[in-house]
Amino acid sequence: GPLKEVLFFPSPQVCVEHLFTSHRSFPCACPFPHGIQTSFSRLLEHLLSARTSLEMCIFSFSNMEMSRAILLLHKRGVVVRVVTDRDYMTITGSQIGALRKAGISVRHEMSSAVHMHHKFALVDGRKLISGSLNWTLTAVQSNKENVIITEEPELVRPFQQEFLKLWEASDPA
Amino acid sequence: GPLKEVLFFPSPQVCVEHLFTSHRSFPCACPFPHGIQTSFSRLLEHLLSARTSLEMCIFSFSNMEMSRAILLLHKRGVVVRVVTDRDYMTITGSQIGALRKAGISVRHEMSSAVHMHHKFALVDGRKLISGSLNWTLTAVQSNKENVIITEEPELVRPFQQEFLKLWEASDPA
Ligand SMILES: [Zn+2]
Ligand SMILES: [Zn+2]
Repeated sequence: GPLKEVLFFPSPQVCVEHLFTSHRSFPCACPFPHGIQTSFSRLLEHLLSARTSLEMCIFSFSNMEMSRAILLLHKRGVVVRVVTDRDYMTITGSQIGALRKAGISVRHEMSSAVHMHHKFALVDGRKLISGSLNWTLTAVQSNKENVIITEEPELVRPFQQEFLKLWEASDPA
Repeated sequence: GPLKEVLFFPSPQVCVEHLFTSHRSFPCACPFPHGIQTSFSRLLEHLLSARTSLEMCIFSFSNMEMSRAILLLHKRGVVVRVVTDRDYMTITGSQIGALRKAGISVRHEMSSAVHMHHKFALVDGRKLISGSLNWTLTAVQSNKENVIITEEPELVRPFQQEFLKLWEASDPA
């Protein structure tokens, strides 16, 4: 059947440099363990698997490595579109400004009385990544969290419709 | 294939009285619309479908109607077990105290440096309910939220293991 995977967090801190630099001719000098797969490295791999599009509805986005992954996809020509929360996009450490500065299209919830509380992404319109996990360092490294990754059309399709609905209804300013 | 359903929120406020009172011989006098199915009424139906067990990992639980559903299941003899967050269980409006008072087993995350941020439930060990939605009134009525409901074993099994792991690791006090 289609891909169905569940990741649980917290995830131990390991080096994920190899996911960003495919042709590395020197050993990495960072202090973190190498050659270990974790829930977080797996999540980054799924994000970085995007070839044509990445559509995200993300409440809180401050994780530097996830931001680095999104910026890399954008640089590779992947069409990235982000819907986010009005209040959380401006909090300290938010990466939303960095995405905008790089030219990525970001829209936000119109009303400040309402939270855009989703935390999902659609990879190439056919892989869903969704769960309790906000895209922050605390969520990844400290909290008890889950992320489902699936290519099951019955699950992907409704989220695709939800993304388009929120994209149309959200403020590009 | 096995059940796969996605619910999106916010959900309009409608009467859900019929879900709690099966033999009603008089029309309901409440001010909300009747005879309308919403994401929230559907979510309550899935919860109330439990016959033997309900296992929950819930970050924030203040929704009165969801609390009423859980208390009804407990009264019917369904074995309910709850893992929750240490900080959020005591905030104003939390229903965790009411569950405990009724004799439902509740455990909480040991550390206050860590959030038990899951929002999932397992019905009879075979139906998973999981998403971004905290079990609060704001989440249901105001926020952009999602809940996946599935009986897909590849998704249910990992959450079942996670529940048991957190149940064993959490504080019953
Ligand atoms: Zn390294
Ligand atoms: Zn009514």
